[in-house]
Amino acid sequence: MQSFFTVRGISASSLSKLLKEQLNSLRERLFPRLWTPVSTVRTCTSLSSHPGAGPVWNLGRLNHVAIAVPDLEKARAFYKNVLGAEVGEPVPLPEHGVSVVFVNLGNTKMELLHPLGSDSPIAGFLKKNKAGGMHHVCIEVDNINVAVMDLKEKKIRILSEEAKIGAHGKPVIFLHPSDCGGVLVELEQA
Amino acid sequence: MQSFFTVRGISASSLSKLLKEQLNSLRERLFPRLWTPVSTVRTCTSLSSHPGAGPVWNLGRLNHVAIAVPDLEKARAFYKNVLGAEVGEPVPLPEHGVSVVFVNLGNTKMELLHPLGSDSPIAGFLKKNKAGGMHHVCIEVDNINVAVMDLKEKKIRILSEEAKIGAHGKPVIFLHPSDCGGVLVELEQA
Repeated sequence: MQSFFTVRGISASSLSKLLKEQLNSLRERLFPRLWTPVSTVRTCTSLSSHPGAGPVWNLGRLNHVAIAVPDLEKARAFYKNVLGAEVGEPVPLPEHGVSVVFVNLGNTKMELLHPLGSDSPIAGFLKKNKAGGMHHVCIEVDNINVAVMDLKEKKIRILSEEAKIGAHGKPVIFLHPSDCGGVLVELEQA
Repeated sequence: MQSFFTVRGISASSLSKLLKEQLNSLRERLFPRLWTPVSTVRTCTSLSSHPGAGPVWNLGRLNHVAIAVPDLEKARAFYKNVLGAEVGEPVPLPEHGVSVVFVNLGNTKMELLHPLGSDSPIAGFLKKNKAGGMHHVCIEVDNINVAVMDLKEKKIRILSEEAKIGAHGKPVIFLHPSDCGGVLVELEQA
Protein backbone atom coordinates (compact mmCIF):
# COMPACT_ATOMS: atom_id res chain seq x y z
CA MET A 1 0.00 0.00 0.00
CA GLN A 2 3.08 2.20 0.21
CA SER A 3 2.55 3.60 -3.28
CA PHE A 4 -0.71 5.24 -2.20
CA PHE A 5 0.92 7.06 0.71
CA THR A 6 0.83 10.83 0.22
CA VAL A 7 1.62 13.90 2.32
CA ARG A 8 -0.45 16.90 1.31
CA GLY A 9 -0.66 15.68 -2.25
CA ILE A 10 2.95 14.57 -2.61
CA SER A 11 3.30 10.87 -3.32
CA ALA A 12 5.58 8.75 -1.16
CA SER A 13 8.05 8.29 -3.99
CA SER A 14 8.19 12.01 -4.77
CA LEU A 15 8.54 12.85 -1.08
CA SER A 16 11.23 10.24 -0.70
CA LYS A 17 13.11 11.62 -3.70
CA LEU A 18 12.73 15.18 -2.42
CA LEU A 19 13.93 14.22 1.04
CA LYS A 20 16.85 12.26 -0.36
CA GLU A 21 17.94 15.18 -2.53
CA GLN A 22 17.69 17.57 0.41
CA LEU A 23 19.45 15.12 2.70
CA ASN A 24 22.29 14.55 0.25
CA SER A 25 22.64 18.28 -0.30
CA LEU A 26 22.76 18.99 3.44
CA ARG A 27 25.05 16.09 4.19
CA GLU A 28 27.40 17.16 1.40
CA ARG A 29 27.51 20.62 2.94
CA LEU A 30 27.89 19.40 6.54
CA PHE A 31 30.26 16.51 5.89
CA PRO A 32 31.98 17.38 2.63
CA ARG A 33 34.71 14.77 3.09
CA LEU A 34 32.53 12.07 4.57
CA TRP A 35 29.72 12.41 2.12
CA THR A 36 28.48 9.49 0.11
CA PRO A 37 25.03 9.25 -1.43
CA VAL A 38 22.30 7.97 0.90
CA SER A 39 21.78 4.93 -1.24
CA THR A 40 25.30 3.65 -0.50
CA VAL A 41 25.95 5.08 2.94
CA ARG A 42 25.55 1.87 4.90
CA THR A 43 28.53 0.25 3.21
CA CYS A 44 30.66 0.31 6.33
CA THR A 45 28.18 -1.01 8.85
CA SER A 46 26.80 -3.61 6.49
CA LEU A 47 30.16 -5.27 6.05
CA SER A 48 30.37 -8.71 7.50
CA SER A 49 33.43 -10.63 8.58
CA HIS A 50 31.37 -13.78 8.15
CA PRO A 51 29.78 -14.03 4.77
CA GLY A 52 28.34 -17.44 5.71
CA ALA A 53 25.77 -18.42 8.32
CA GLY A 54 26.24 -18.01 12.08
CA PRO A 55 26.74 -15.01 14.34
CA VAL A 56 28.47 -12.05 12.73
CA TRP A 57 30.38 -9.01 13.89
CA ASN A 58 31.00 -5.82 12.00
CA LEU A 59 33.75 -3.28 12.19
CA GLY A 60 32.61 0.28 12.87
CA ARG A 61 34.14 3.71 13.14
CA LEU A 62 37.54 4.75 14.46
CA ASN A 63 36.85 5.60 18.10
CA HIS A 64 40.24 7.18 18.85
CA VAL A 65 43.95 7.31 18.23
CA ALA A 66 45.88 6.99 21.49
CA ILE A 67 49.10 8.96 21.95
CA ALA A 68 51.46 8.20 24.84
CA VAL A 69 52.99 11.44 26.14
CA PRO A 70 55.78 11.99 28.67
CA ASP A 71 54.39 15.40 29.72
CA LEU A 72 50.59 15.62 29.76
CA GLU A 73 50.33 19.37 30.27
CA LYS A 74 52.83 20.12 27.52
CA ALA A 75 51.03 17.82 25.09
CA ARG A 76 47.67 19.28 26.10
CA ALA A 77 48.99 22.80 25.50
CA PHE A 78 50.26 21.80 22.05
CA TYR A 79 46.88 20.54 20.85
CA LYS A 80 44.97 23.38 22.55
CA ASN A 81 47.15 26.44 22.01
CA VAL A 82 49.22 25.55 18.94
CA LEU A 83 46.69 23.59 16.89
CA GLY A 84 43.59 25.22 18.40
CA ALA A 85 41.85 21.90 19.02
CA GLU A 86 38.96 21.37 21.43
CA VAL A 87 40.79 19.81 24.37
CA GLY A 88 39.45 18.53 27.70
CA GLU A 89 40.89 18.62 31.20
CA PRO A 90 43.13 15.75 32.35
CA VAL A 91 41.08 12.82 33.67
CA PRO A 92 42.77 10.37 36.08
CA LEU A 93 41.78 6.75 35.44
CA PRO A 94 43.68 4.92 38.21
CA GLU A 95 41.98 1.59 37.44
CA HIS A 96 43.54 1.77 33.95
CA GLY A 97 46.89 3.19 35.05
CA VAL A 98 46.63 6.36 32.97
CA SER A 99 45.66 10.00 33.04
CA VAL A 100 43.95 10.96 29.82
CA VAL A 101 43.23 14.16 27.91
CA PHE A 102 40.63 13.98 25.15
CA VAL A 103 41.24 15.95 21.95
CA ASN A 104 38.02 16.29 19.95
CA LEU A 105 38.50 16.36 16.18
CA GLY A 106 34.81 16.29 15.29
CA ASN A 107 34.69 12.96 13.47
CA THR A 108 36.83 11.13 16.04
CA LYS A 109 39.23 11.94 18.86
CA MET A 110 42.79 11.64 19.97
CA GLU A 111 43.52 10.52 23.51
CA LEU A 112 46.70 11.72 25.19
CA LEU A 113 47.79 9.09 27.71
CA HIS A 114 50.21 9.59 30.57
CA PRO A 115 51.21 6.89 33.07
CA LEU A 116 49.42 6.92 36.44
CA GLY A 117 50.59 4.71 39.27
CA SER A 118 53.35 2.14 39.37
CA ASP A 119 51.81 -0.41 37.01
CA SER A 120 50.83 1.67 34.00
CA PRO A 121 50.32 -0.16 30.69
CA ILE A 122 52.10 2.65 28.84
CA ALA A 123 55.18 3.02 31.06
CA GLY A 124 57.13 0.49 29.00
CA PHE A 125 56.23 2.24 25.75
CA LEU A 126 57.50 5.58 27.08
CA LYS A 127 60.74 3.96 28.24
CA LYS A 128 61.38 2.90 24.64
CA ASN A 129 59.92 6.10 23.13
CA LYS A 130 61.05 8.87 25.43
CA ALA A 131 59.53 11.67 23.32
CA GLY A 132 56.17 9.87 23.24
CA GLY A 133 54.33 8.62 20.16
CA MET A 134 51.32 6.88 18.72
CA HIS A 135 50.39 4.01 21.05
CA HIS A 136 47.29 2.35 19.57
CA VAL A 137 44.18 2.79 17.44
CA CYS A 138 40.73 1.91 18.75
CA ILE A 139 38.04 0.74 16.32
CA GLU A 140 34.45 0.03 17.32
CA VAL A 141 32.70 -3.29 16.73
CA ASP A 142 29.04 -4.17 17.05
CA ASN A 143 29.49 -7.48 18.87
CA ILE A 144 32.74 -7.86 20.73
CA ASN A 145 32.07 -11.35 22.08
CA VAL A 146 31.48 -12.73 18.60
CA ALA A 147 34.57 -10.81 17.44
CA VAL A 148 36.65 -12.51 20.16
CA MET A 149 35.47 -15.98 19.07
CA ASP A 150 36.07 -15.21 15.41
CA LEU A 151 39.52 -13.68 15.92
CA LYS A 152 40.62 -16.65 18.04
CA GLU A 153 39.51 -18.95 15.23
CA LYS A 154 41.55 -16.84 12.83
CA LYS A 155 44.61 -17.29 15.10
CA ILE A 156 44.86 -13.61 16.00
CA ARG A 157 46.37 -13.28 19.46
CA ILE A 158 44.26 -11.29 21.92
CA LEU A 159 46.02 -9.76 24.93
CA SER A 160 43.34 -10.98 27.36
CA GLU A 161 41.33 -14.21 27.52
CA GLU A 162 38.08 -12.28 27.03
CA ALA A 163 36.80 -8.71 26.68
CA LYS A 164 37.42 -6.43 29.67
CA ILE A 165 35.86 -3.11 30.59
CA GLY A 166 37.99 -0.37 29.07
CA ALA A 167 38.58 3.29 29.83
CA HIS A 168 35.17 4.32 28.39
CA GLY A 169 33.28 1.79 30.53
CA LYS A 170 32.69 -0.51 27.56
CA PRO A 171 34.08 -3.98 26.80
CA VAL A 172 37.37 -3.88 24.88
CA ILE A 173 40.08 -6.23 23.66
CA PHE A 174 43.59 -5.54 22.41
CA LEU A 175 45.04 -7.48 19.48
CA HIS A 176 48.71 -8.45 19.42
CA PRO A 177 50.66 -5.92 17.30
CA SER A 178 52.64 -8.71 15.64
CA ASP A 179 49.38 -10.05 14.19
CA CYS A 180 48.27 -6.57 13.03
CA GLY A 181 51.18 -5.25 10.97
CA GLY A 182 53.01 -3.71 13.92
CA VAL A 183 49.98 -1.77 15.17
CA LEU A 184 48.39 -2.27 18.59
CA VAL A 185 44.67 -2.47 17.72
CA GLU A 186 41.98 -2.03 20.36
CA LEU A 187 38.45 -3.13 19.53
CA GLU A 188 35.65 -1.57 21.59
CA GLN A 189 32.00 -2.56 21.83
CA ALA A 190 30.06 0.28 20.18
CA MET B 1 9.48 36.32 0.22
CA GLN B 2 10.73 33.04 1.64
CA SER B 3 7.74 32.61 3.94
CA PHE B 4 5.45 32.39 0.92
CA PHE B 5 7.48 29.60 -0.63
CA THR B 6 5.45 26.39 -0.82
CA VAL B 7 5.94 22.97 -2.36
CA ARG B 8 2.65 21.41 -3.35
CA GLY B 9 0.85 23.12 -0.50
CA ILE B 10 3.51 22.65 2.18
CA SER B 11 4.92 25.93 3.49
CA ALA B 12 8.67 26.51 3.54
CA SER B 13 8.76 26.40 7.35
CA SER B 14 6.79 23.13 7.52
CA LEU B 15 8.92 21.62 4.79
CA SER B 16 12.07 22.79 6.56
CA LYS B 17 10.89 21.28 9.86
CA LEU B 18 9.92 18.05 8.12
CA LEU B 19 13.25 17.83 6.35
CA LYS B 20 15.19 18.61 9.54
CA GLU B 21 13.31 15.91 11.46
CA GLN B 22 13.92 13.42 8.66
CA LEU B 23 17.55 14.47 8.41
CA ASN B 24 18.18 14.16 12.14
CA SER B 25 16.40 10.82 12.26
CA LEU B 26 18.39 9.47 9.32
CA ARG B 27 21.67 10.88 10.57
CA GLU B 28 21.05 9.42 14.03
CA ARG B 29 20.45 6.04 12.41
CA LEU B 30 23.36 6.26 9.99
CA PHE B 31 25.91 7.88 12.27
CA PRO B 32 24.75 6.98 15.80
CA ARG B 33 28.08 7.92 17.40
CA LEU B 34 28.75 10.97 15.30
CA TRP B 35 25.28 12.38 15.49
CA THR B 36 24.60 15.81 16.89
CA PRO B 37 21.53 17.88 16.08
CA VAL B 38 21.78 19.89 12.86
CA SER B 39 21.63 23.12 14.81
CA THR B 40 24.88 22.40 16.69
CA VAL B 41 26.83 20.39 14.16
CA ARG B 42 29.44 23.05 13.39
CA THR B 43 31.06 22.94 16.84
CA CYS B 44 34.38 21.64 15.62
CA THR B 45 34.83 23.91 12.63
CA SER B 46 33.97 26.99 14.67
CA LEU B 47 37.05 26.52 16.83
CA SER B 48 39.68 29.16 16.25
CA SER B 49 43.40 29.12 16.91
CA HIS B 50 43.36 32.89 16.91
CA PRO B 51 40.78 34.41 19.18
CA GLY B 52 42.02 37.91 18.29
CA ALA B 53 41.93 39.84 15.02
CA GLY B 54 43.80 38.87 11.85
CA PRO B 55 43.57 35.88 9.54
CA VAL B 56 42.57 32.68 11.27
CA TRP B 57 42.85 29.00 10.59
CA ASN B 58 40.81 26.22 12.13
CA LEU B 59 41.58 22.62 12.78
CA GLY B 60 39.12 20.17 11.27
CA ARG B 61 38.52 16.45 11.21
CA LEU B 62 41.02 13.61 11.30
CA ASN B 63 41.58 12.81 7.64
CA HIS B 64 43.53 9.58 8.15
CA VAL B 65 45.94 7.57 10.23
CA ALA B 66 48.88 6.37 8.14
CA ILE B 67 50.39 2.95 8.80
CA ALA B 68 53.72 1.96 7.29
CA VAL B 69 53.68 -1.72 6.33
CA PRO B 70 56.47 -3.99 5.13
CA ASP B 71 54.07 -6.25 3.18
CA LEU B 72 51.17 -4.41 1.55
CA GLU B 73 49.17 -7.47 0.48
CA LYS B 74 49.49 -9.07 3.92
CA ALA B 75 48.38 -5.88 5.65
CA ARG B 76 45.53 -5.44 3.17
CA ALA B 77 44.39 -9.02 3.80
CA PHE B 78 44.43 -8.41 7.57
CA TYR B 79 42.10 -5.40 7.41
CA LYS B 80 39.89 -6.98 4.71
CA ASN B 81 39.63 -10.61 5.72
CA VAL B 82 40.36 -10.59 9.44
CA LEU B 83 38.69 -7.35 10.51
CA GLY B 84 36.16 -7.24 7.65
CA ALA B 85 36.91 -3.62 6.77
CA GLU B 86 36.10 -1.95 3.47
CA VAL B 87 39.51 -1.99 1.78
CA GLY B 88 40.56 -0.61 -1.60
CA GLU B 89 43.01 -1.90 -4.17
CA PRO B 90 46.68 -0.86 -3.90
CA VAL B 91 47.28 2.53 -5.58
CA PRO B 92 50.82 3.38 -6.72
CA LEU B 93 51.77 7.00 -6.09
CA PRO B 94 55.29 7.16 -7.57
CA GLU B 95 55.49 10.95 -7.14
CA HIS B 96 55.11 10.40 -3.38
CA GLY B 97 57.27 7.29 -3.17
CA VAL B 98 54.51 5.05 -1.80
CA SER B 99 51.90 2.52 -2.76
CA VAL B 100 48.79 3.03 -0.67
CA VAL B 101 45.75 0.99 0.34
CA PHE B 102 42.79 2.88 1.78
CA VAL B 103 40.87 1.31 4.66
CA ASN B 104 37.48 3.01 5.07
CA LEU B 105 36.24 3.15 8.65
CA GLY B 106 33.18 5.29 7.93
CA ASN B 107 34.12 8.36 9.95
CA THR B 108 37.75 8.44 8.77
CA LYS B 109 40.24 6.13 7.12
CA MET B 110 43.49 4.34 7.63
CA GLU B 111 46.09 4.43 4.89
CA LEU B 112 48.48 1.52 4.54
CA LEU B 113 51.74 2.82 3.06
CA HIS B 114 54.44 0.74 1.42
CA PRO B 115 57.65 2.15 -0.08
CA LEU B 116 57.70 2.66 -3.84
CA GLY B 117 60.94 3.52 -5.65
CA SER B 118 64.38 4.16 -4.25
CA ASP B 119 63.63 7.40 -2.43
CA SER B 120 60.55 6.59 -0.40
CA PRO B 121 59.78 8.80 2.61
CA ILE B 122 58.83 5.74 4.66
CA ALA B 123 61.82 3.51 3.88
CA GLY B 124 63.75 4.83 6.87
CA PHE B 125 60.80 4.27 9.20
CA LEU B 126 60.51 0.64 8.10
CA LYS B 127 64.24 0.13 8.59
CA LYS B 128 63.79 1.11 12.24
CA ASN B 129 60.37 -0.58 12.59
CA LYS B 130 60.67 -3.80 10.62
CA ALA B 131 57.20 -5.05 11.55
CA GLY B 132 55.64 -1.74 10.46
CA GLY B 133 53.69 0.66 12.63
CA MET B 134 51.81 3.93 12.91
CA HIS B 135 53.61 6.51 10.79
CA HIS B 136 51.60 9.75 11.05
CA VAL B 137 48.20 11.32 11.62
CA CYS B 138 46.67 13.73 9.12
CA ILE B 139 44.30 16.45 10.33
CA GLU B 140 42.45 18.83 8.03
CA VAL B 141 42.70 22.61 8.28
CA ASP B 142 40.60 25.25 6.57
CA ASN B 143 43.47 27.56 5.55
CA ILE B 144 46.83 25.91 5.27
CA ASN B 145 48.76 29.02 4.23
CA VAL B 146 47.62 30.91 7.31
CA ALA B 147 48.39 27.81 9.39
CA VAL B 148 51.96 27.79 8.02
CA MET B 149 52.49 31.45 8.97
CA ASP B 150 51.00 30.95 12.41
CA LEU B 151 52.94 27.76 13.18
CA LYS B 152 56.21 29.39 12.11
CA GLU B 153 55.47 32.27 14.49
CA LYS B 154 54.84 29.69 17.22
CA LYS B 155 58.28 28.16 16.50
CA ILE B 156 56.86 24.83 15.32
CA ARG B 157 59.24 23.33 12.78
CA ILE B 158 57.65 22.47 9.42
CA LEU B 159 59.37 19.86 7.25
CA SER B 160 59.06 22.03 4.12
CA GLU B 161 59.35 25.76 3.56
CA GLU B 162 55.72 25.95 2.40
CA ALA B 163 52.75 23.70 1.72
CA LYS B 164 53.21 21.10 -1.02
CA ILE B 165 50.68 19.04 -2.92
CA GLY B 166 50.15 15.79 -1.00
CA ALA B 167 48.96 12.32 -1.92
CA HIS B 168 45.30 13.45 -2.17
CA GLY B 169 46.14 16.31 -4.56
CA LYS B 170 45.71 18.94 -1.84
CA PRO B 171 48.28 21.18 -0.13
CA VAL B 172 49.84 19.59 2.95
CA ILE B 173 52.57 20.25 5.47
CA PHE B 174 54.28 17.96 7.97
CA LEU B 175 55.16 19.18 11.46
CA HIS B 176 58.35 18.03 13.16
CA PRO B 177 57.56 15.14 15.55
CA SER B 178 59.83 16.62 18.23
CA ASP B 179 57.54 19.67 18.36
CA CYS B 180 54.39 17.51 18.49
CA GLY B 181 54.96 15.12 21.39
CA GLY B 182 56.72 12.48 19.30
CA VAL B 183 53.97 12.31 16.65
CA LEU B 184 54.47 13.15 12.98
CA VAL B 185 51.49 15.41 12.25
CA GLU B 186 50.37 16.15 8.69
CA LEU B 187 48.00 19.07 8.12
CA GLU B 188 45.98 18.99 4.91
CA GLN B 189 43.91 21.73 3.30
CA ALA B 190 40.27 20.60 3.61
